[in-house]
Amino acid sequence: MPKRDLVDYTAQNPFDRFPDGRPKVPDDLIQRARDLSAEEIWAVLQAKGYNNQYADGFQVLHPGETMVGRAFTVQFMPSRSDVDDVAQQKAKAKGMPRLMNQTAIDMLQPGDVLVVDLFGKKVNGTIVGDNLFYYTMQATHSGGLVVDGAIRDLNGISEIDMPAYFRSVDPTPIGNVMLTGINVPIRIGEVTVMPGDLVVGDREGVYFIPPQFVQEVLDKADETHVHDEWTKKKFAEGKYKSSEIYGSPSDPKLQQEYQEYLKRRLEEIRKQRSSK
Amino acid sequence: MPKRDLVDYTAQNPFDRFPDGRPKVPDDLIQRARDLSAEEIWAVLQAKGYNNQYADGFQVLHPGETMVGRAFTVQFMPSRSDVDDVAQQKAKAKGMPRLMNQTAIDMLQPGDVLVVDLFGKKVNGTIVGDNLFYYTMQATHSGGLVVDGAIRDLNGISEIDMPAYFRSVDPTPIGNVMLTGINVPIRIGEVTVMPGDLVVGDREGVYFIPPQFVQEVLDKADETHVHDEWTKKKFAEGKYKSSEIYGSPSDPKLQQEYQEYLKRRLEEIRKQRSSK
Amino acid sequence: MPKRDLVDYTAQNPFDRFPDGRPKVPDDLIQRARDLSAEEIWAVLQAKGYNNQYADGFQVLHPGETMVGRAFTVQFMPSRSDVDDVAQQKAKAKGMPRLMNQTAIDMLQPGDVLVVDLFGKKVNGTIVGDNLFYYTMQATHSGGLVVDGAIRDLNGISEIDMPAYFRSVDPTPIGNVMLTGINVPIRIGEVTVMPGDLVVGDREGVYFIPPQFVQEVLDKADETHVHDEWTKKKFAEGKYKSSEIYGSPSDPKLQQEYQEYLKRRLEEIRKQRSSK
Amino acid sequence: MPKRDLVDYTAQNPFDRFPDGRPKVPDDLIQRARDLSAEEIWAVLQAKGYNNQYADGFQVLHPGETMVGRAFTVQFMPSRSDVDDVAQQKAKAKGMPRLMNQTAIDMLQPGDVLVVDLFGKKVNGTIVGDNLFYYTMQATHSGGLVVDGAIRDLNGISEIDMPAYFRSVDPTPIGNVMLTGINVPIRIGEVTVMPGDLVVGDREGVYFIPPQFVQEVLDKADETHVHDEWTKKKFAEGKYKSSEIYGSPSDPKLQQEYQEYLKRRLEEIRKQRSSK
Amino acid sequence: MPKRDLVDYTAQNPFDRFPDGRPKVPDDLIQRARDLSAEEIWAVLQAKGYNNQYADGFQVLHPGETMVGRAFTVQFMPSRSDVDDVAQQKAKAKGMPRLMNQTAIDMLQPGDVLVVDLFGKKVNGTIVGDNLFYYTMQATHSGGLVVDGAIRDLNGISEIDMPAYFRSVDPTPIGNVMLTGINVPIRIGEVTVMPGDLVVGDREGVYFIPPQFVQEVLDKADETHVHDEWTKKKFAEGKYKSSEIYGSPSDPKLQQEYQEYLKRRLEEIRKQRSSK
Amino acid sequence: MPKRDLVDYTAQNPFDRFPDGRPKVPDDLIQRARDLSAEEIWAVLQAKGYNNQYADGFQVLHPGETMVGRAFTVQFMPSRSDVDDVAQQKAKAKGMPRLMNQTAIDMLQPGDVLVVDLFGKKVNGTIVGDNLFYYTMQATHSGGLVVDGAIRDLNGISEIDMPAYFRSVDPTPIGNVMLTGINVPIRIGEVTVMPGDLVVGDREGVYFIPPQFVQEVLDKADETHVHDEWTKKKFAEGKYKSSEIYGSPSDPKLQQEYQEYLKRRLEEIRKQRSSK
Repeated sequence: MPKRDLVDYTAQNPFDRFPDGRPKVPDDLIQRARDLSAEEIWAVLQAKGYNNQYADGFQVLHPGETMVGRAFTVQFMPSRSDVDDVAQQKAKAKGMPRLMNQTAIDMLQPGDVLVVDLFGKKVNGTIVGDNLFYYTMQATHSGGLVVDGAIRDLNGISEIDMPAYFRSVDPTPIGNVMLTGINVPIRIGEVTVMPGDLVVGDREGVYFIPPQFVQEVLDKADETHVHDEWTKKKFAEGKYKSSEIYGSPSDPKLQQEYQEYLKRRLEEIRKQRSSK
Repeated sequence: MPKRDLVDYTAQNPFDRFPDGRPKVPDDLIQRARDLSAEEIWAVLQAKGYNNQYADGFQVLHPGETMVGRAFTVQFMPSRSDVDDVAQQKAKAKGMPRLMNQTAIDMLQPGDVLVVDLFGKKVNGTIVGDNLFYYTMQATHSGGLVVDGAIRDLNGISEIDMPAYFRSVDPTPIGNVMLTGINVPIRIGEVTVMPGDLVVGDREGVYFIPPQFVQEVLDKADETHVHDEWTKKKFAEGKYKSSEIYGSPSDPKLQQEYQEYLKRRLEEIRKQRSSK
Repeated sequence: MPKRDLVDYTAQNPFDRFPDGRPKVPDDLIQRARDLSAEEIWAVLQAKGYNNQYADGFQVLHPGETMVGRAFTVQFMPSRSDVDDVAQQKAKAKGMPRLMNQTAIDMLQPGDVLVVDLFGKKVNGTIVGDNLFYYTMQATHSGGLVVDGAIRDLNGISEIDMPAYFRSVDPTPIGNVMLTGINVPIRIGEVTVMPGDLVVGDREGVYFIPPQFVQEVLDKADETHVHDEWTKKKFAEGKYKSSEIYGSPSDPKLQQEYQEYLKRRLEEIRKQRSSK
Repeated sequence: MPKRDLVDYTAQNPFDRFPDGRPKVPDDLIQRARDLSAEEIWAVLQAKGYNNQYADGFQVLHPGETMVGRAFTVQFMPSRSDVDDVAQQKAKAKGMPRLMNQTAIDMLQPGDVLVVDLFGKKVNGTIVGDNLFYYTMQATHSGGLVVDGAIRDLNGISEIDMPAYFRSVDPTPIGNVMLTGINVPIRIGEVTVMPGDLVVGDREGVYFIPPQFVQEVLDKADETHVHDEWTKKKFAEGKYKSSEIYGSPSDPKLQQEYQEYLKRRLEEIRKQRSSK
Repeated sequence: MPKRDLVDYTAQNPFDRFPDGRPKVPDDLIQRARDLSAEEIWAVLQAKGYNNQYADGFQVLHPGETMVGRAFTVQFMPSRSDVDDVAQQKAKAKGMPRLMNQTAIDMLQPGDVLVVDLFGKKVNGTIVGDNLFYYTMQATHSGGLVVDGAIRDLNGISEIDMPAYFRSVDPTPIGNVMLTGINVPIRIGEVTVMPGDLVVGDREGVYFIPPQFVQEVLDKADETHVHDEWTKKKFAEGKYKSSEIYGSPSDPKLQQEYQEYLKRRLEEIRKQRSSK
Repeated sequence: MPKRDLVDYTAQNPFDRFPDGRPKVPDDLIQRARDLSAEEIWAVLQAKGYNNQYADGFQVLHPGETMVGRAFTVQFMPSRSDVDDVAQQKAKAKGMPRLMNQTAIDMLQPGDVLVVDLFGKKVNGTIVGDNLFYYTMQATHSGGLVVDGAIRDLNGISEIDMPAYFRSVDPTPIGNVMLTGINVPIRIGEVTVMPGDLVVGDREGVYFIPPQFVQEVLDKADETHVHDEWTKKKFAEGKYKSSEIYGSPSDPKLQQEYQEYLKRRLEEIRKQRSSK
């Protein structure tokens, strides 16, 4: 995708960009995003009318670990040599190496999550084995991998500390496909993923957050964290029915108690954050 | 369900009942049931002609943990406002709160397992998130949850120590459904679940035991435990073919040895139990 | 379901009722409904916020034929004899015959569609074979059958002229289930079906229209029929792009032409209808 | 797709092109292609190493009818308004109408088959209802429709004489998607479809033949037709085992008989064809 | 399978045998079996404790047509050349042709149904295309085909008048498999099929009747035909509830009427049959 | 299977055999095979044209553990008593015990993996519960279990230290099947398994290696281990793009470095191995 188009289609990005135009959500927001839950993201995005940003149905490599990073997108399509030959000539003419999975992998940056459309392919739909998974871990600083397709060498990969979401596992290498795009819009399940989206994966699935909503998602999440903390504290007291406390306290005195708790805790959180 | 109906339809219950008529399997039997396996329950129920008391195909929250408790049943159906409006008016007329998931959850008792028919719904089919899951854990003393539907906030829920069986996970809240029954007969998979059934869940699936069979299931299980203990002991000796020992020993001397072992161990088990 | 409850829960019904309280959409509206398409029904119901009235995924017996009639609902659940015995005693005490599929079938009225919840059961989930299908055809005057379950003897049934929608076919008879309700609210797929709903089935699936919306659905459909007639007429002229004509004509002169056509044709349709 | 790119990526096209660069397989070859079977196409393409040109798993509207035409491709992706807004502005800047399904449909030419990637979407994944299906039939001269998605108003559509292949049917209109490409490479199942591919659909599935192979496929098919004609004639004589005749005759005399038959019939076919 | 084994394992066969030992259900019984329904077969076989003789889930080539014939079984397994090479050498040593699908097809007899285990294979799992399907039709006198696998060239095959049941259709030829048995016991779905079983296929699925039960199935079916004839006649009178007539008449006078009808009609049927 | 046939069909076996003719891959090679990955096996077998030796889609009992052993195969088919009675008589005549799962289990040897075709059966398709699983563990010295079918008593089994691969879990015991072969060729998924194949299972699935390829697989795997070791070491240095190192180093100096590393490490590995 030409840089100009990438910048155009991500015009609402409020942050810096990589040299190729891809939005660059700042590192400190990526760190804060490690505490997000799928529900907190859902709440903000659905309010904005963004109902297609969540994909699930993956096998999750390390279920206890959260994945956070900037989307680096790659698209494959079923191979047909008349089209692939032209693409390879065009790449060569631009001085690029032969188009294949490593072409994209060699462009990864720290903080990236590699997001790959392999259209659910299993046999010969394996984006990486343990060697390239290891390389990706090094290059992205354990950013992560989402593939609508497969991986190979699961035994080796499961010993490497990087989050990964994949549809299946197969012993065959990648084949019978052609690389048709790097950092272009791609589809993963029911999501249109844009390069530079903030990718957040938990045990349930993967959210792709447009950069323009990252700050708001994080700020709302602070409130939700405090809300849940207070709610569970009250439940632990064993004096209330759930409906007296949750979603919001019905008794005005409890409501006030909550509001004060919320205010105090948010201040503490912000203080603690800025002191880092 | 009117108390009278509930009592009628569970007429074979040999135990006490809750004020609303629901059978109350005693606490000590619930404790003993923690050692049950699915096979031990199957053996007694199939002999009685009860072949529809087992449901599987769930995601299991804590696979190593056994779930045991009394069924507290809840039924939802797809929403249509003409019907739901009438139900809400009827509830209001009886002084009940607005009918929703929390209405049922606020009625849970220690030792209950919340069993919910959400007809396999995923999107907007989430009976609880982590706050209400935490409340349920408190209210039931870690009884458990079985939902033919979804939960949300799996990351949060997986840190809470209560067994749970669910079909799927989704970030959306519950919606587009109406509550149509609390402690009524419901269907979970191929099982008709009655309020007060003893619910036993292991790694494989969930059994719903009618109260009238609980004592017999437990007593037979004592024998099976001893049988399996002895069988494995003999196998560990390495002197026998499996068919010489299992299902029952073919050699009369081994048969006698087993009968004596069984008798002795059952006595020990009962002694140990009564001394608690 | 007691008559009182049935009347309460269908309070918005604007038509007569059967002696048991079930709404009775008039015969002439049933006749008009034979020309409805799924899309026309969808348009009115979604505007009312009724998004759960459509079920599909059935095998359709006679794909070219439309099914229209009043819902007569029947519910089965997995058998457990402790519950079934009580239900049978209660039925006997009321002077009813043994509860089974024929109990319900013998209550069918002309114009009814038999709608059965057999929870998707295939083996032993067959509501009728060719004899009872023939009886149902006679009793309902070819009303129809919708079963979330199976039928048996498809060869024989396919020669009988009544619409039917079913999930599967099996040679076994019905068994291992218990009848738990006649003319109660039941769930078919993602629909809560109420007794007396107008059932409309086409090649795509089955709509369940609450009686209070039947008149409006039919009136709007008249307009849609004229709209589609005019649209295709204009397309057949070959002079227009689709977007000049459909959804509505962009050119004011075409708009006027359409409005006049609509008015004239609606008058013709109504005249023709009243002259019958 | 800019015309230049479309011409580049279809550089092997031996035929004329449409003004936008799309290859234009000649009308007479389209006519001849009506007699092709999936196996005849498979034989030529696999020999060329093109193993990804066949898609199946569709519902077929008129199973007895063959579909033949030039691929007119359309791509949709899940909607996200930040991206769609930019695309709409860009379209507007070029003087194009609002991007939606009708935008593409209004560009169809006689002999086209509309090939649409709606990523298998059912609810709100309906490319046309009966009005636009009728328009497409008029515009393409009954070319055809292939959609990896749904259609609506099947009752109406099934009365219209144009071949169609679709995944499902739903009463909802298209929605929650954005148009992302017209006459771009798209993926349908395991096929990368290029604009201008010759689309051939039978009872089994749909083949997408690159223009450069159309002539050879047709010529080989002539031979296969004669081969099958002769093979069945010999089988009908009842004197031979299948292996004496098929794949090719083992007896030299039969081999000679076949070669003479083949030569004679091919001449007849070509004569007959040229005399038209 | 050596003839001796085949005779041993079908020892209960009451009829003649083919030279290779395969049971030969007589032609006149095959003719009578054309009127059987799946339910009639089910009734006899389940009473004998044979619950695994029915397979479904097939695509049916000509749904209105009944298939009846003697099972000629063929087994394929996934290819591995070390095993296949030995099998080919053994075949050669016995003077047999190279083992492949045609080897079996060339052995078919009039009245046979070709029953093939291709373990559900689709790609390269196609037992026949239209040429060999035509040959099979000739050789078996339109006996039929059941394949747990695929066929190719459906367009051509659907014009040939022989019943066929298959799992899928694919353009590829058979490959990557090895022939491992002709007229050996094979598994089709949940059925162990023996060579010489009477195969009966209708719209629902396929029954495999052991020869020793054929006579009884046919005789019971005569009664069932009369029973259904009488039942529908009574229903058509419109005077009875279904439960007064079906399963059997409750009123002694109706019972007597039925018994007389049954006796008379059975005599007529037998007379008519013997006069042929 | 007669010994003679078993020896014939495994003629390429380079190792000793068990008394019944089954190939016996030596114990030291079994030990070395514990370090194999699926990819290493795939590389050798596909080069030999053996593309059908891998099965997946199992539930894996202990995902972190590798399974290695010699295939001991068992085949079941759906029960039909006419066939089973003959088989039992034949077994009895040979002095064998009643044919059932334990008949085969009692024949297991140290180092065996029990491989069972139960055709995917779940209910009554359970080859072992915890007692027989324990026995199998003792008899095979924790060899392993692969069943295209089910197990029962998962809770008990998961505490026993032996690898196992199964399709499902059910509380019912094995039933409604008949044992039709011990140490015969069987099909597991898309694999023809021969008795004596080396079975290797990891997190992904199970490979069945013909004995004649075991030595070569192991030797190539040594190289691959060194290759991956070196590749990751270079990646860890962080100085190279993945394509400079992997699949093989592009720079001649790196190539030389690698070759020297490979030579040295292979020597070390062999020395270490021989010193054991």
